[in-house]
Amino acid sequence: MPQLAPSFPLPIGLDPGSPTPLYRQLAEWFRQAILAGRLHPGQRVPSTRRLADELKVSRIPVLGAYEQLLAEGYLESFIGAGTCVARAIPGESLRRVAGKSRKAAPAAHRRGARRTSRRSAAMPVLEQPWLKNLGAFRIGLPAVDRFPMGIWAQLVNRHVRRQALEVMGYGGPLGYLPLRAAIADYLSAMRAVKCDAEQIMVTTGSQQGLQLSAQVLLDAGDEAWVEEPGYLGARQALLAVGAKPVSVPVDTEGLRVADGIRRGRDAHAVYITPSHQFPLGMTMSAARRMSLLNWATESGAWIIEDDYDSEYRFGGRPVASLQGMDPDERVIYVGTFSKVMFPALRVGYVVIPKDLVPSFAVARDAGDTFSSSLHQLVMADFIGEGHFARHTRRMRTLYMERRTALVEAIAAELPGQLEVVGGETGMHLVALLPPGVDDIAVTRAAAARGVSVRPLSQCYIRAPKRGGLILGFGGAASRDIPEAIRRLKTCI
Amino acid sequence: MPQLAPSFPLPIGLDPGSPTPLYRQLAEWFRQAILAGRLHPGQRVPSTRRLADELKVSRIPVLGAYEQLLAEGYLESFIGAGTCVARAIPGESLRRVAGKSRKAAPAAHRRGARRTSRRSAAMPVLEQPWLKNLGAFRIGLPAVDRFPMGIWAQLVNRHVRRQALEVMGYGGPLGYLPLRAAIADYLSAMRAVKCDAEQIMVTTGSQQGLQLSAQVLLDAGDEAWVEEPGYLGARQALLAVGAKPVSVPVDTEGLRVADGIRRGRDAHAVYITPSHQFPLGMTMSAARRMSLLNWATESGAWIIEDDYDSEYRFGGRPVASLQGMDPDERVIYVGTFSKVMFPALRVGYVVIPKDLVPSFAVARDAGDTFSSSLHQLVMADFIGEGHFARHTRRMRTLYMERRTALVEAIAAELPGQLEVVGGETGMHLVALLPPGVDDIAVTRAAAARGVSVRPLSQCYIRAPKRGGLILGFGGAASRDIPEAIRRLKTCI
Repeated sequence: MPQLAPSFPLPIGLDPGSPTPLYRQLAEWFRQAILAGRLHPGQRVPSTRRLADELKVSRIPVLGAYEQLLAEGYLESFIGAGTCVARAIPGESLRRVAGKSRKAAPAAHRRGARRTSRRSAAMPVLEQPWLKNLGAFRIGLPAVDRFPMGIWAQLVNRHVRRQALEVMGYGGPLGYLPLRAAIADYLSAMRAVKCDAEQIMVTTGSQQGLQLSAQVLLDAGDEAWVEEPGYLGARQALLAVGAKPVSVPVDTEGLRVADGIRRGRDAHAVYITPSHQFPLGMTMSAARRMSLLNWATESGAWIIEDDYDSEYRFGGRPVASLQGMDPDERVIYVGTFSKVMFPALRVGYVVIPKDLVPSFAVARDAGDTFSSSLHQLVMADFIGEGHFARHTRRMRTLYMERRTALVEAIAAELPGQLEVVGGETGMHLVALLPPGVDDIAVTRAAAARGVSVRPLSQCYIRAPKRGGLILGFGGAASRDIPEAIRRLKTCI
Repeated sequence: MPQLAPSFPLPIGLDPGSPTPLYRQLAEWFRQAILAGRLHPGQRVPSTRRLADELKVSRIPVLGAYEQLLAEGYLESFIGAGTCVARAIPGESLRRVAGKSRKAAPAAHRRGARRTSRRSAAMPVLEQPWLKNLGAFRIGLPAVDRFPMGIWAQLVNRHVRRQALEVMGYGGPLGYLPLRAAIADYLSAMRAVKCDAEQIMVTTGSQQGLQLSAQVLLDAGDEAWVEEPGYLGARQALLAVGAKPVSVPVDTEGLRVADGIRRGRDAHAVYITPSHQFPLGMTMSAARRMSLLNWATESGAWIIEDDYDSEYRFGGRPVASLQGMDPDERVIYVGTFSKVMFPALRVGYVVIPKDLVPSFAVARDAGDTFSSSLHQLVMADFIGEGHFARHTRRMRTLYMERRTALVEAIAAELPGQLEVVGGETGMHLVALLPPGVDDIAVTRAAAARGVSVRPLSQCYIRAPKRGGLILGFGGAASRDIPEAIRRLKTCI
């Protein structure tokens, strides 16, 4: 059976100049020889002494390699009988596997045999050229250069040097309690959310809040209302659990609840942005809110309220949350600090109806266990010491300036061409394009000129009558805005 | 229709000493009155001047409240006709919602109408008393007090003060490229993983790697092999997508592949810990590895390799990864820095077969978008400047000492009672209890005495013949181990 007689020297080439130690080079040679079928199950290998002689090396690397191969089960040895390739290794099937080259292109695989989940295959991969640059009008990007990084760095230092288990060890799936309490206080005072600390889960951002809500609330095939136009990330979170998004149009009062009931009476959930509709920016009226809450209570549906940037309201005062109006605890309230602080922080939150808290905790534990403790401790101090309120106030003024600069630049450079919608709240506005202009083509051309805008049409499931551009102004300095709009003009 | 004549003073109680501004108290009173049906759609409200007179306050808070209520759609006003409760508000249904008290206990809800997903309802909530304390033997906890926190803090400072978009803005779903390259180099050299940087996704830890793998690869009802006994977190990640775990027993050579084929021939995936079986600690033999790879190639199944702490191998040298032996790119390799660095860091990685990278990226984007950039930048420097290799070497020596101290303490305090299994690798070992002793009862008693052990039986789907305790020694100082074992003794 042995094809290489044990007396025949093995064709091993060692490279003493390599950074890989000799013992590892040797072990790798044996592994590959066994995998490729050049050494067979049961075949004797040379003694360590003989192999060392043949290779002109000391016995130490040879002993190391054999020890390793014995531990891994490639070799076995018997007292008095020497060492051989493990007989338990499957001979022929082995060669079959090893016969296929690793170099084969993925295209050579039978695709049917490399099946991914239906859910995964159903998730669209959209062209997103605007993510490739960091110039003006990236959506959701705050003025990171105005963030009080000095204060933040001090707080990070305070905690990072303590070397405490609290900072370094495992945290719970719901998060750090003092931060949860600070978030509950903030949301009660500023957003009229009705909650206590026990209902708060600290997440890595609003997307995780959406994902966990879909995970806990929806099975494959369950319908969920989404706004038309609406937020892509929410649709993706629903598709990720196999739920079916049902698009419900919005008008100046927000989601048209009656249309939703007509299109998806049996829906299990609604995803909604009532304070500041994404992307069009209107506020949902009290009447619609009540109709929605009534329908949810009657039908047993859940409402996922995404309150993504209502800290920044320029006209009028902040609108109270839908969650605070709900007597039936059907609203899961999702928020984030990505836009008030900075995106890379990865700290957001969900306010969970009390009876769902254990289900969310289990889902989080199975998902990614817990949020980075360091950022939670720092965030708690940042809020507790008043930096958060101060920074938010300053940014409100700044973003109002930037919004004005943007609206003025559009009026000056593109009079009559772009129609501005929204923008009384938050960090972006929509500029509707003249009928017939393809917003995806404009976006692509703008990205090539270093201007990051997002096409409105991608927020629709059914193609809209009129395209538009979504322009984020949070991260765009007022002085740079006119030039960016001039560049955008050349793309339309 | 109006029940309160407009000429009748409204029963509004304001608290001028409250931290809540008057305008907000007023708006809240109106909202509640409308929600509760005390003010009706179409009913006129007093003019701002009259209400200010009645309440003996200035007109400013009244104007503020009305402006807010108009914006929210609770009130509407007509020129010459004054202001009234919005007529679009649904009258009767509204009262029905508002009639239910928020104070009602969740038990009062019809449970059927508060349905969560079947997947979520199927996920077991296990009693985990050992998580409540941070004393000796917590599993997976490294020696955080020996971590070079001074160096870490310096690196954090270096990046946190730059205030760069790279640190603060949005990152991609796959992670920071220099860190991905450093991970690819590390895994190639130390674990014989065959990969390049493009295949690496930076995650928030190994649990996220498992969750994303299940998300991308498995639909509801798909079978997946898990080791028996095995890692609970993997089972939870599978259940979270509705997959069916099929338990496959392990023996001294690791997973019994033939049993797997018998029990779940059509399984779509296998979760496995080949380098260091969790919890029993054996290494999967080369023969079994090849049988598994053969079966996976033939049946089109995926292998999820969790290489959770094989940095710490005390006897013999590190065993090569299963991924490196696989010619067919069927292995998703999952790892984490939680155990080599510290758990709260939340940085781990997945090595993804090339053709699956886009699916993983979309799943990550829909899940939590990206990992904290700051920690990725710092981690890249920590590896690149050699701190990582130095720290790992030091910890290997330390954990070997701790392991010896633990084995000796068990031999001294509980001779013949506990049988030690595993422990040649990693940061935990299993101590089998005498037959008939309930490991969950021991765990509970130990937690009450401040000793954190985990019951072996919870790692089984079918109840095992013999219970045991899983003891983590990474975070237990050698000098504290004998006392902890003495306390544990009183619990058996």
